[in-house]
Amino acid sequence: MLSVGINGYGTIGKRVADAVRTQPDMTVAGVVKTSPDHVAALADDRGFSLYVPTKDYRGEFRAAGMDPAGTLEDLLDASDIVVDATPGGVGQSYVPKYREAGIPYILQGAEPAKAAAASFCAGANGPSCVDEGSLRVVSCNTTGLARTLATLGEVAPVDRVDVTLVRRGGDPTQTDRGPINDILPTTDVPSHHAEDLRTVLPDVSIHTVAMTVPTTLMHVHGVTVTFESTPDERAIREQLAGADRLALVPGDRDLDAISALIEVGRDMGRPRGDIWETCLWEDSIDVRDRRLSFIQAVHQESIVVPETIDAIRTLAGEDPIESAEWTNEHLGVGQLRFGSRERTTPVTAE
Amino acid sequence: MLSVGINGYGTIGKRVADAVRTQPDMTVAGVVKTSPDHVAALADDRGFSLYVPTKDYRGEFRAAGMDPAGTLEDLLDASDIVVDATPGGVGQSYVPKYREAGIPYILQGAEPAKAAAASFCAGANGPSCVDEGSLRVVSCNTTGLARTLATLGEVAPVDRVDVTLVRRGGDPTQTDRGPINDILPTTDVPSHHAEDLRTVLPDVSIHTVAMTVPTTLMHVHGVTVTFESTPDERAIREQLAGADRLALVPGDRDLDAISALIEVGRDMGRPRGDIWETCLWEDSIDVRDRRLSFIQAVHQESIVVPETIDAIRTLAGEDPIESAEWTNEHLGVGQLRFGSRERTTPVTAE
Amino acid sequence: MLSVGINGYGTIGKRVADAVRTQPDMTVAGVVKTSPDHVAALADDRGFSLYVPTKDYRGEFRAAGMDPAGTLEDLLDASDIVVDATPGGVGQSYVPKYREAGIPYILQGAEPAKAAAASFCAGANGPSCVDEGSLRVVSCNTTGLARTLATLGEVAPVDRVDVTLVRRGGDPTQTDRGPINDILPTTDVPSHHAEDLRTVLPDVSIHTVAMTVPTTLMHVHGVTVTFESTPDERAIREQLAGADRLALVPGDRDLDAISALIEVGRDMGRPRGDIWETCLWEDSIDVRDRRLSFIQAVHQESIVVPETIDAIRTLAGEDPIESAEWTNEHLGVGQLRFGSRERTTPVTAE
Amino acid sequence: MLSVGINGYGTIGKRVADAVRTQPDMTVAGVVKTSPDHVAALADDRGFSLYVPTKDYRGEFRAAGMDPAGTLEDLLDASDIVVDATPGGVGQSYVPKYREAGIPYILQGAEPAKAAAASFCAGANGPSCVDEGSLRVVSCNTTGLARTLATLGEVAPVDRVDVTLVRRGGDPTQTDRGPINDILPTTDVPSHHAEDLRTVLPDVSIHTVAMTVPTTLMHVHGVTVTFESTPDERAIREQLAGADRLALVPGDRDLDAISALIEVGRDMGRPRGDIWETCLWEDSIDVRDRRLSFIQAVHQESIVVPETIDAIRTLAGEDPIESAEWTNEHLGVGQLRFGSRERTTPVTAE
Repeated sequence: MLSVGINGYGTIGKRVADAVRTQPDMTVAGVVKTSPDHVAALADDRGFSLYVPTKDYRGEFRAAGMDPAGTLEDLLDASDIVVDATPGGVGQSYVPKYREAGIPYILQGAEPAKAAAASFCAGANGPSCVDEGSLRVVSCNTTGLARTLATLGEVAPVDRVDVTLVRRGGDPTQTDRGPINDILPTTDVPSHHAEDLRTVLPDVSIHTVAMTVPTTLMHVHGVTVTFESTPDERAIREQLAGADRLALVPGDRDLDAISALIEVGRDMGRPRGDIWETCLWEDSIDVRDRRLSFIQAVHQESIVVPETIDAIRTLAGEDPIESAEWTNEHLGVGQLRFGSRERTTPVTAE
Repeated sequence: MLSVGINGYGTIGKRVADAVRTQPDMTVAGVVKTSPDHVAALADDRGFSLYVPTKDYRGEFRAAGMDPAGTLEDLLDASDIVVDATPGGVGQSYVPKYREAGIPYILQGAEPAKAAAASFCAGANGPSCVDEGSLRVVSCNTTGLARTLATLGEVAPVDRVDVTLVRRGGDPTQTDRGPINDILPTTDVPSHHAEDLRTVLPDVSIHTVAMTVPTTLMHVHGVTVTFESTPDERAIREQLAGADRLALVPGDRDLDAISALIEVGRDMGRPRGDIWETCLWEDSIDVRDRRLSFIQAVHQESIVVPETIDAIRTLAGEDPIESAEWTNEHLGVGQLRFGSRERTTPVTAE
Repeated sequence: MLSVGINGYGTIGKRVADAVRTQPDMTVAGVVKTSPDHVAALADDRGFSLYVPTKDYRGEFRAAGMDPAGTLEDLLDASDIVVDATPGGVGQSYVPKYREAGIPYILQGAEPAKAAAASFCAGANGPSCVDEGSLRVVSCNTTGLARTLATLGEVAPVDRVDVTLVRRGGDPTQTDRGPINDILPTTDVPSHHAEDLRTVLPDVSIHTVAMTVPTTLMHVHGVTVTFESTPDERAIREQLAGADRLALVPGDRDLDAISALIEVGRDMGRPRGDIWETCLWEDSIDVRDRRLSFIQAVHQESIVVPETIDAIRTLAGEDPIESAEWTNEHLGVGQLRFGSRERTTPVTAE
Repeated sequence: MLSVGINGYGTIGKRVADAVRTQPDMTVAGVVKTSPDHVAALADDRGFSLYVPTKDYRGEFRAAGMDPAGTLEDLLDASDIVVDATPGGVGQSYVPKYREAGIPYILQGAEPAKAAAASFCAGANGPSCVDEGSLRVVSCNTTGLARTLATLGEVAPVDRVDVTLVRRGGDPTQTDRGPINDILPTTDVPSHHAEDLRTVLPDVSIHTVAMTVPTTLMHVHGVTVTFESTPDERAIREQLAGADRLALVPGDRDLDAISALIEVGRDMGRPRGDIWETCLWEDSIDVRDRRLSFIQAVHQESIVVPETIDAIRTLAGEDPIESAEWTNEHLGVGQLRFGSRERTTPVTAE
């Protein structure tokens, strides 16, 4: 039973904690919070032991009616592995502490690649990461691209990739982020996503341009893949249909909106309505000569959660591909129900 | 065991269906859908029998791989009561069918008041509705106001009420509704909410002004209540703290945003993250002379669900106040967890 | 000829500079910029002498192909009066420099009231400000409320005022401000607007609640005024129709949207499409017993520009009421054209 | 002196009317309005003769204090040419009337291509349109793409083009359009833009994917052009820098936002702040092997106005290229001032 400490309990941390709990071979050692707000109360409700970064935080928590179980140092002592889920850019500052504690650590994708021994996306470069003592799970956009490009690379050799990333401005609760009525191009090209993708798929020649728009739900990618020679369209469609953690969105179910995907997650009773799968619209697939284009969407709040669970097992010495199967099964990844037309099961009474 | 038919399976219909299922004394006879989209597939997944309005719809459903259990007429035959959850304004056109079937019916608040025997909000005028053969559950904004004003009226006689309603532009999936970057005042005053409120609280002197803003999450009300004489502030606060289906939002937990309330619903694992309770910010309560003012929020997708369950029981001859207790208990209304400071339970390890 | 220096050339500074130029008795001594961006280039295009805060900024400007005419100190030497238009909260830090230069200064409304000798709104408290050496022009929301309440106070004695302010999240170019899909209540009540209003209308008993929404165009106020006794509705309507810097928006011209008001400004060829007038929807006026309610809108980018020009003249010893007439005439305030129905001029050929 | 009738006085019609007036060889015969709203009042203020579609509309206009100069039929009699600026899809229904009147007509890009003798974009296919009796000015997105691709085609032969179009949800005053918080992919690929582009550049092999986002300001295009062989990057940059109606946005002036471009238009005193030029971010230009990529923006309210003026002259038998120069000169196209770093004129005092 792997005991997992989680440093940070925000958008990613609280999801990783819940996901760890769904896995039969792991348990949550505790979570670190910096402020005794309603999210800290949630951790308590969930039964997660609440830790604070240092002793200095204890007073504030006690004044708020919460009694921390200890400090980050205590949590590291009680953990076999630590997942850093602190805000972007902060994680790297904790690396010395993790090293001092002598346990493997996992960073999120907003940290610099060099802060961990390797960058990680199970389906892209998982097997090459087994002997590392620390991993960086690449960001939501990179994970979404890596999943699709890794699987497409199995169909035929890819010459190059061009992506336009349309990014959401902030997460639903990030009230101080904009824009309100604007589109913000990242004119310094290629955007950082190209370089980041190569940390897990080093051989892909990719150019990315990015812009930010006023939504909070998912990122959207317009992708053009140029193969070395004209690929078999049927093979591409079959590969995408069978790919892990990739959901084909059917064209005949009134699903041409990000909000419709999110609603599916809510309706299915997914935790927080999360969409762990990369969603690729089937009707947007277009193959012409050597070129394939499509549109896909990435749920920034949750897409890296399965890969984080995989990373935990990989650092524990397990096979990342087998781990991914376990993760999927116990978390429920890959079971999005869009009610596609192919379905023929008759509708039966309750 | 009450058998409840639901005509319409959109924002309200799907929630009512799920809520009926949580109640030990009711069952879902089936739901009517007009199009075989992913929402219809959801009904099937849930095990709800799927009906279509008329035989003409069967072909389209069968072509989409769904085999309807029958038509609306069949569903009415199989039901003890019908809840209309068709789009606003459409419901009244079905009333003749409901009457013909000879079963009690419930309409939503967007229908005209005269289309049902009485308008209904359990805590406001529930007891006066027991002998009616049809009920109209008032709209989300009216329900939110009626809950608060009914409970405040128990503290002291109210002289009059002034409300500024800041309305969300559309529900999350209503992609064809705006505005995008605008505020739309309803300059024809008072807005219709004043008259609608009097269908359940006829004695309240109320003026409402409304405007619409580009959000999808909740409506917000700035409310000023003028009492006939200076009220006891402590009595008001205690009354609000103990009121049914009303959640006081504490001021010390970083909850000054609609998105934070929605996140609480998601984090708690509520179905679809729904917030059935009217949320009233404790720090916004201000009593000066005869005047009380406060800010409250209303989740337009789900707030009327508990009252709809109450309406079902009321039409079945049960006491609406007792029913509300059952509804709350089995649905889980009234258990929002904001982690308020008063809480003193020590945080314990997992 | 008054020589006016302007410290800061952003949203307010560039508008004040252009407005000063329209007045026959003033000239722009120069403007201070902190960064050689496209806005600085605009100042140059307009023929405004460009100054920098200190000598340290010269290098950056020269590298960008701009040669500053001097420093803030030089500008103060060349000016009879200085208008501070630096970002909110920064202005107060410049007060010692303005005092040292020995010239009158004007601050914007985001500075603390005590940083200037008096707070100012020409039509509200202008005449009481003539002997002061420094003035603070109150903020956009306060100016909008002060204009309306001052004029209403001339109709009948006001008992008290309750306002719900629905604030825009940011100006059109403030890309780092949100929210994106949220409503943010200011739950610490009353919001600061109540206190700020009393700096220019000290006798008004006012309560304000505020919330922020995702738009960039104008603030909107839902206002309830309670008079000491029932007022004459006709007198109120006539007073509002004739009030200075207040435009009644007719109900019969398809103008029930903030964007429609902004479009009128654009269509009329106003500089930057600005709406200097408080806009009050005529149809929203509702008088019942002692209570008047209405909805009004405030263009945050430009509403304080006329009052800033008035403040300049007031500090120069002129009568603020007479000044307001000059300001209006030369700037063009009060000439919004909504095409109201009363108009009977026949349409003639070009 | 060409007498131009304009049928429709909305977003496009009012801009075309103002633009015609700036040209020394044309005059506005009159404009047709369907409703006596504030926009009709504006036409009157501008001195444009106001016409109605048929006699039936006269009563409503007279009741609103406006006396129409005649009907559309009367306007066609008084015009040498007619510009249709009615809502998208409506224009084609007027074609029989235009033909009956025996005068050349111009349609907007939302009409079907076959409704006019040819589709038109001066710089793309202008010279091929001189002998036609009717023209369709292609839509805003198509015009923006045609301008750039036509000029790039002069540098080197283009193999193919891939575009991701990020479309604004509505114009600033279209309050009933969404989405509010969503991204809407057009999954039926290629989007219609590809086919539309070929109506003016028939030889371009282009694939377009489109999505709609919640903004009102400009469309943004992520463009990838693959040349037949590796192009000279310097030649591309020079071509773009010198291209007609195309403005290179410098990277060093804090202009990485659509709102910044709009602000430049407002600050320069452009009519309605309009941006007639396609705006292409210089820093986004990336040439690698045979591939060029860049980001550009298109102001949907105004970009087709210059081409509409060109179309008028072309139908009158003039050379479209020469016409474009006249249009630019008298309208002021091509003079956007971003304050680019190359500029060395010293800043001088007022």
